[in-house]
Amino acid sequence: MPEIIEEDYRLMKLANTNTFSLNIFGWSAIERTEGEFDFGWLDKIMDRLAEEGSHVILATPSGARPAWLSQTYPEVLRVEKNRVRNLHGLRHNHCFTSPVYREKVRIMNEKLAERYANHPSLIMWHISNEYGGECHCDLCQDAFRTWLKEKYNNDLEQLNQAWWTGFWSHRFNDWSQVESPAPHGENMVHGMNLDWRRFVSDQTIDFYKHEIAPLRAVDPSIPVTTNFMGNYPHMRPFLGIDYNKFAKEMDIVTWDSYPPWHIEGQTTTKLASDVGFVHDLYRSLKDGQPFLIMENTPSLVNWHDINKTKEEGVHALSAIQAVAHGADSILYFQWRQGRGASEKFHGAVVDHSGTEHTRVFQEVARLGDELNKLQPVAGTSVAPEVAVVFDFENNWAIDDAQALNNINKKYSEQCQAHYHSFWKQGIPVDVISMEGDFSKYKVLVGPMLYMIKPGVAERIEAFVKAGGTFIATYWSGIVNENDLCFLGGFPGPLKNLLGVWAEEIDSLYPEHGIKVSTAGRTYNVTDYCERVHANEAEVLGTFESGGYDKRPALTVNQVEAGKAYYMASSNEQRFYDDFYSELATELSLTRILDAAIPGGVSVQKRTDGETDYVFVMNFSEEAQQVELESNIQYINALTGTARSGIITVEAYNYMILSK
Amino acid sequence: MPEIIEEDYRLMKLANTNTFSLNIFGWSAIERTEGEFDFGWLDKIMDRLAEEGSHVILATPSGARPAWLSQTYPEVLRVEKNRVRNLHGLRHNHCFTSPVYREKVRIMNEKLAERYANHPSLIMWHISNEYGGECHCDLCQDAFRTWLKEKYNNDLEQLNQAWWTGFWSHRFNDWSQVESPAPHGENMVHGMNLDWRRFVSDQTIDFYKHEIAPLRAVDPSIPVTTNFMGNYPHMRPFLGIDYNKFAKEMDIVTWDSYPPWHIEGQTTTKLASDVGFVHDLYRSLKDGQPFLIMENTPSLVNWHDINKTKEEGVHALSAIQAVAHGADSILYFQWRQGRGASEKFHGAVVDHSGTEHTRVFQEVARLGDELNKLQPVAGTSVAPEVAVVFDFENNWAIDDAQALNNINKKYSEQCQAHYHSFWKQGIPVDVISMEGDFSKYKVLVGPMLYMIKPGVAERIEAFVKAGGTFIATYWSGIVNENDLCFLGGFPGPLKNLLGVWAEEIDSLYPEHGIKVSTAGRTYNVTDYCERVHANEAEVLGTFESGGYDKRPALTVNQVEAGKAYYMASSNEQRFYDDFYSELATELSLTRILDAAIPGGVSVQKRTDGETDYVFVMNFSEEAQQVELESNIQYINALTGTARSGIITVEAYNYMILSK
Amino acid sequence: MPEIIEEDYRLMKLANTNTFSLNIFGWSAIERTEGEFDFGWLDKIMDRLAEEGSHVILATPSGARPAWLSQTYPEVLRVEKNRVRNLHGLRHNHCFTSPVYREKVRIMNEKLAERYANHPSLIMWHISNEYGGECHCDLCQDAFRTWLKEKYNNDLEQLNQAWWTGFWSHRFNDWSQVESPAPHGENMVHGMNLDWRRFVSDQTIDFYKHEIAPLRAVDPSIPVTTNFMGNYPHMRPFLGIDYNKFAKEMDIVTWDSYPPWHIEGQTTTKLASDVGFVHDLYRSLKDGQPFLIMENTPSLVNWHDINKTKEEGVHALSAIQAVAHGADSILYFQWRQGRGASEKFHGAVVDHSGTEHTRVFQEVARLGDELNKLQPVAGTSVAPEVAVVFDFENNWAIDDAQALNNINKKYSEQCQAHYHSFWKQGIPVDVISMEGDFSKYKVLVGPMLYMIKPGVAERIEAFVKAGGTFIATYWSGIVNENDLCFLGGFPGPLKNLLGVWAEEIDSLYPEHGIKVSTAGRTYNVTDYCERVHANEAEVLGTFESGGYDKRPALTVNQVEAGKAYYMASSNEQRFYDDFYSELATELSLTRILDAAIPGGVSVQKRTDGETDYVFVMNFSEEAQQVELESNIQYINALTGTARSGIITVEAYNYMILSK
Repeated sequence: MPEIIEEDYRLMKLANTNTFSLNIFGWSAIERTEGEFDFGWLDKIMDRLAEEGSHVILATPSGARPAWLSQTYPEVLRVEKNRVRNLHGLRHNHCFTSPVYREKVRIMNEKLAERYANHPSLIMWHISNEYGGECHCDLCQDAFRTWLKEKYNNDLEQLNQAWWTGFWSHRFNDWSQVESPAPHGENMVHGMNLDWRRFVSDQTIDFYKHEIAPLRAVDPSIPVTTNFMGNYPHMRPFLGIDYNKFAKEMDIVTWDSYPPWHIEGQTTTKLASDVGFVHDLYRSLKDGQPFLIMENTPSLVNWHDINKTKEEGVHALSAIQAVAHGADSILYFQWRQGRGASEKFHGAVVDHSGTEHTRVFQEVARLGDELNKLQPVAGTSVAPEVAVVFDFENNWAIDDAQALNNINKKYSEQCQAHYHSFWKQGIPVDVISMEGDFSKYKVLVGPMLYMIKPGVAERIEAFVKAGGTFIATYWSGIVNENDLCFLGGFPGPLKNLLGVWAEEIDSLYPEHGIKVSTAGRTYNVTDYCERVHANEAEVLGTFESGGYDKRPALTVNQVEAGKAYYMASSNEQRFYDDFYSELATELSLTRILDAAIPGGVSVQKRTDGETDYVFVMNFSEEAQQVELESNIQYINALTGTARSGIITVEAYNYMILSK
Repeated sequence: MPEIIEEDYRLMKLANTNTFSLNIFGWSAIERTEGEFDFGWLDKIMDRLAEEGSHVILATPSGARPAWLSQTYPEVLRVEKNRVRNLHGLRHNHCFTSPVYREKVRIMNEKLAERYANHPSLIMWHISNEYGGECHCDLCQDAFRTWLKEKYNNDLEQLNQAWWTGFWSHRFNDWSQVESPAPHGENMVHGMNLDWRRFVSDQTIDFYKHEIAPLRAVDPSIPVTTNFMGNYPHMRPFLGIDYNKFAKEMDIVTWDSYPPWHIEGQTTTKLASDVGFVHDLYRSLKDGQPFLIMENTPSLVNWHDINKTKEEGVHALSAIQAVAHGADSILYFQWRQGRGASEKFHGAVVDHSGTEHTRVFQEVARLGDELNKLQPVAGTSVAPEVAVVFDFENNWAIDDAQALNNINKKYSEQCQAHYHSFWKQGIPVDVISMEGDFSKYKVLVGPMLYMIKPGVAERIEAFVKAGGTFIATYWSGIVNENDLCFLGGFPGPLKNLLGVWAEEIDSLYPEHGIKVSTAGRTYNVTDYCERVHANEAEVLGTFESGGYDKRPALTVNQVEAGKAYYMASSNEQRFYDDFYSELATELSLTRILDAAIPGGVSVQKRTDGETDYVFVMNFSEEAQQVELESNIQYINALTGTARSGIITVEAYNYMILSK
Repeated sequence: MPEIIEEDYRLMKLANTNTFSLNIFGWSAIERTEGEFDFGWLDKIMDRLAEEGSHVILATPSGARPAWLSQTYPEVLRVEKNRVRNLHGLRHNHCFTSPVYREKVRIMNEKLAERYANHPSLIMWHISNEYGGECHCDLCQDAFRTWLKEKYNNDLEQLNQAWWTGFWSHRFNDWSQVESPAPHGENMVHGMNLDWRRFVSDQTIDFYKHEIAPLRAVDPSIPVTTNFMGNYPHMRPFLGIDYNKFAKEMDIVTWDSYPPWHIEGQTTTKLASDVGFVHDLYRSLKDGQPFLIMENTPSLVNWHDINKTKEEGVHALSAIQAVAHGADSILYFQWRQGRGASEKFHGAVVDHSGTEHTRVFQEVARLGDELNKLQPVAGTSVAPEVAVVFDFENNWAIDDAQALNNINKKYSEQCQAHYHSFWKQGIPVDVISMEGDFSKYKVLVGPMLYMIKPGVAERIEAFVKAGGTFIATYWSGIVNENDLCFLGGFPGPLKNLLGVWAEEIDSLYPEHGIKVSTAGRTYNVTDYCERVHANEAEVLGTFESGGYDKRPALTVNQVEAGKAYYMASSNEQRFYDDFYSELATELSLTRILDAAIPGGVSVQKRTDGETDYVFVMNFSEEAQQVELESNIQYINALTGTARSGIITVEAYNYMILSK
């Protein structure tokens, strides 16, 4: 429908949008029958967008394939855990190992590279779409065994030892006996489960690398990315792939952000903090390099249980928050709603009415205008003094552990609780993996460091000795990189540094009534509680009630120039808030604003070293006031007017100040 | 056991029962081995019932088949969505496409017709039992493709367009690529899901037509029926088949009614109203022609989660309600409990004690006596001025939509809320499909008319212009018959008639706090809320609070001689009650009784044009009083005594008045 | 790691442990490749334990098999209900019918017997581990048919009659048509489901007998056992096998006891009573012969939803409770935590710290010391005057019935409610099957005797006539041993004895409000309520409210020298407490202590006829006092000091008194 397409170009201008991601599911439009390629429709769009001065992020279409491909080559269809091969359907439903699929993708990508690498509108390659999932076909079983042989030096005994197969008589005496986890086969050998998740992650990244090879071959200067995901409804990173490993192969990180704003059972403020955690993690993947929001919805999604629209202002607030945490650009899924199929009710800039006269369109246009005014922010970043460790492999291992609260171990929840205390104070945070560089931070928070990979304990110790402050919690130092327990007492290799021995861990039912008391204040314990011996450590807080009465709950160990804290229980948020507030004062951590920050308000910063951009965002349902430092002259970055004294930020609104 | 059978005939007289449905699962008794038929046992029962003056509704036994048939011809076994063929077992477990099954059924039905068509006890054929379910075998896949080719004129591009297959690269380029929906295949192409449901419905009806052919061939004058079902625990029609289509092929509608009386979380009054909705729908299927209750339990069922018995009086009340809504006869499942297998604890007229000295038996006998006194009611009906549209295909499409509250869209609940307001006022209602004839009504209520099939908008507009009153709600005019969205603004083809543009729809969590205010009264909004623009329409009510403050919530548009209302949200019941009460007054709708009807009391009517039968039924837990019109002389139809002034109806009791 | 093993021997002494179960999952350690056996490691441990004076319970390793066995002989892998064969993995995953598996097990067991039968450390054989589960492979289908032919005398018509296959046309005309129950096949033929459970139970026992044959062949004097299980989180016996039948083939009963202490929603007191019920049942399996606790955890398990540790003292209390009910020994799972795999976080005497300096180790050692002091208790038992009937087949049939509350029929809950009233009074109870010997009791309580097997009614009647007191409840006398209903009125063959006719049973939603009134007191009815006619029986209590007002709720029928009570409803605990308290007084039942027993305290007894050991155990959260009889001189069995007058037992503590 050419008139609709023409109308689209008119609306794009009105919406202040100028970058478009194309071709994500375009395979069947390009190659309708095997080997016959038609790029005409794509040429037209690319050319026209170039004329309009717009940019294109061009996708390889491997995220979904034509029906003929599944029909002719059934091996491309994924096999599920139950060992049943899927039928054609949905998307993201292909084997990452299949030589046929790899070859078909290579041909497609080569043609795209040859045709568009030099196209004036092209600014970036978008590889496939939202990589995820796993395949258990025979090809993948073989690839898994090959991966294992490499890891275990072709020595089956090493594998038997790492997986502790002697237990339950599971010892393998031939590689061919190894199979991927299955609901109706092996699924309780945790070392095996962990290696399988690593293999799946590696194989996905390998497929991605296979995809980019023909693109790079034509022009290595064009940046490549793929769109990462979040996890919903609990807002945290997508956990299917080790994004720390994946990001190394990408030129720029992008992600699809769909926070479930206004979801029941969580305040908008806490949800905003959890979103901030994810933004900060993705910014930290490439050492503070700005990222892109590849997808977000201008209104609502259609795949939540209850698809609530965003309240007035929340869409812009959500987008500005992304920018505040490091995003350089905000793209939408989707531009225009399709008339049929499964996403026809997913929010879009242009809905089925087809006009610009919608609340949503107008909000998008207004936001687009503001984002244009914030162009100078692009490329800037932030250099936090605080890092929270969130580690994908650690998360996999914790979730798979048969222990604690088996329904929900709450690893990311715990990391996000510590993070939240800094968020409330306007102190920037990096979210890094266990393999990250600790040396640039003053404070390192490592909640639930269940798995300690080789060298990590040593690096933490060096960090503390050099004057750093390290905070550890219950359920740390339990297993090595193969999920084998450390012997000699927990927290294993961190025992000396922390100066404690964690003898037992207790998982609590709600309403158990244990409390922790420190510095004259008392807090509720939630979920977990350890029986800890303070060996070298000083006891700062103790439990009250029950068998835990007067036992250590919070300790600190001075080690050379630094300090190592241990929190023996999971506590209510107020505990972390008070603790980190005092710590920030003690360590003179830099707060972005030297001001009291009211509840619901988030203060974030981006800087190029000269100009600071301070984002003051109000996620609460009421207007909030912040008193700016009297000695600094701020300018409202959107209006250009000077600001000082008390500023008022309306509910679900924001102010961006530069100085 | 001949003595038990002999005893049965004695008890049948005592129970005042005179019509029996036989042979529903009789196949293995008739054809114990392939091709050897023994009708002796059936002859004996039929002959004896004829002697007793009783009637037989004789079933074809296709609802369950002998084990030898499954063993010899595995193709008759149904294949589930997961593409696994069932083993022999249960019932209703056969492929409707299988040529073998069709042939075996044809032979059986031919023999039944030849043997019993002229039997003096035979009054009706009962085809199979409670048709439902679906099969995904290769035969059905082929039949599906054939059905699609016919619908889409042998043009795969038409199918691609209707199913919007370009999305997610799903375009088909060969018919053989099309497969039925599968959990491990395609299931998000909503146009395909919808066509599959249509195909399953059509194929079931086709099988039924195959069944009746040999019966009609022998004597086309014997009426045929099959027993429709309800849905439980939420009381609404069974949704597996388009009963509007199916009813066209039947001489008389019958259904199996098992309301979950006393279920937790719903008042008996509201449940009674929901049951009335289903009765009215089934009566409306053949334009007001009376129906039969083919099954109901005299006591309890055994397949609810919690199998509560009916309180004293509720059994008779439930049966009389069916009569009040158009039933001409009430049959029981089951006459006598079988000693073993899965329904041995399902209620029966004669239980395992084997005597008439049970509460249940006595209630059945007393009711039977009353039903005999109500013989003149048979054949009468009612001609409502109000119709509520409840459309099976619309329901399928709404439930399958990826949008709104994905857990429960609440389509039937919404239809039943509107219906309930008329039920409370004693105003009769028809429940019709979108294809029904609107012209005979004064008021047409069309809640959630998501799908507007071709011609429907035009017929509604004609209805309004001719003076009718039409009530529409949120989520109307969204898609066409193939689930493709209308462009240019919702409610699509109803936009001009209603004079509104529904820009956005919001799905609400409980306790969201939005209210609607109209005519000085305020009501709670529930579940859904739209952002509506009243273009030509007059605003009668507005929302309060939040981003919806002062926006239109209830509008009306005068179009020539009629009016078209739009309700932009789902509201508490009181809203509908007040609205329809005022509407009834404004339009002078005929109430069956010109009296205040207390809560819990339902007033229904049947008439032959001369004598009116007014059913006053008390579903509440207390006695209720109604003041009869002073100018009319009523007669208690069960006692023959004259009634006037105030009548008292005890809890769970009823009074039937003729005039 | 020899140094760890050496350390183990040191710790064993410290822990006061002297009996060890070995080789439970040792197959792959012994037979690493097919046909090559290495017993060296086992020799060493056995020899050393003999030197240390410790005892070994040596297991046959059939509970899990090496991967090579599954790979070479796939027939040994179990086939699930859905007819899909499992992959290798987990444990307890083998077909009990497979000739190959039986042969491999025979060879293994023969070698173990030959090697260790005369070993000085060996005191018992432990056969396999926690038998359970079922297989639906073709071999098992054949075995099932063979089992059925035997039961039904090779007469398919008998089977058709017993299974009532005429219903739903399910009649079989060839044995080959019979298949085991399947979710996608037959599953509503209750007689078939029941026979399948019996077959699975019998086949498991048959496999066990196959296992012990080579052991007995070498030395029949060595006792054999296998470890029975409990059911969690609701504490009751494991229901997969008829343990009454199984126990007949064992020399001593042992079981793995993992009560979910401190679980939410149940008091520790009630849980303790439910545990006592299971102990008493297992003691009753072999007529009061003491049993062993083969496994219990010294701290926590890791397979509950929430893995709470035991509060201080509860571990010892739990162990002492086992002794109080008849255990002669307490073994642990596990001695030392393994570094990897699925049970690395399951509690152990020696945890990953590897030392004796843990709370858990110290508690184990202290308890071990106490158990040594209680050596004289070994071999003693108790001879209760009261028996509660809990019947496995009855439980299977009730749970499978399509009736009542289909979510939870609450059979064991009801048995445990009656049991609890005696537990509170310190009156010992046996828990026996329907086939048990009733004649030795004064009181026989048979809750929900849904199934009455042949002869049972007659034996109960004889029991009553001889002066016994029998208590029956609702839902009794419904079906025979094949799940076919009794005709002529319930409670079927118990109708005359009880003197009542139970006409109808009602299943209640919570908060229904029916009450029962007896002897001037009023109690809440829960779950079930029957409409009963007291024919010959005297009415002692009636219902109040609703349709049940003034109808019989509690009746008694004097029959010769005895009495038969009938309780027509399920009631709150207080009802049973009051009833059995008065009954105990009326019948002068022997209470272990002639004293008021405070809430939370359990009093149990073991005796050799001369010395009585009285266990006073406090399961409440506060100290409790008991006043000892003034005329008896007790001695604290652990300290040797005399005790009289008021004794105080601290929270979660106990006192063992001998007299």
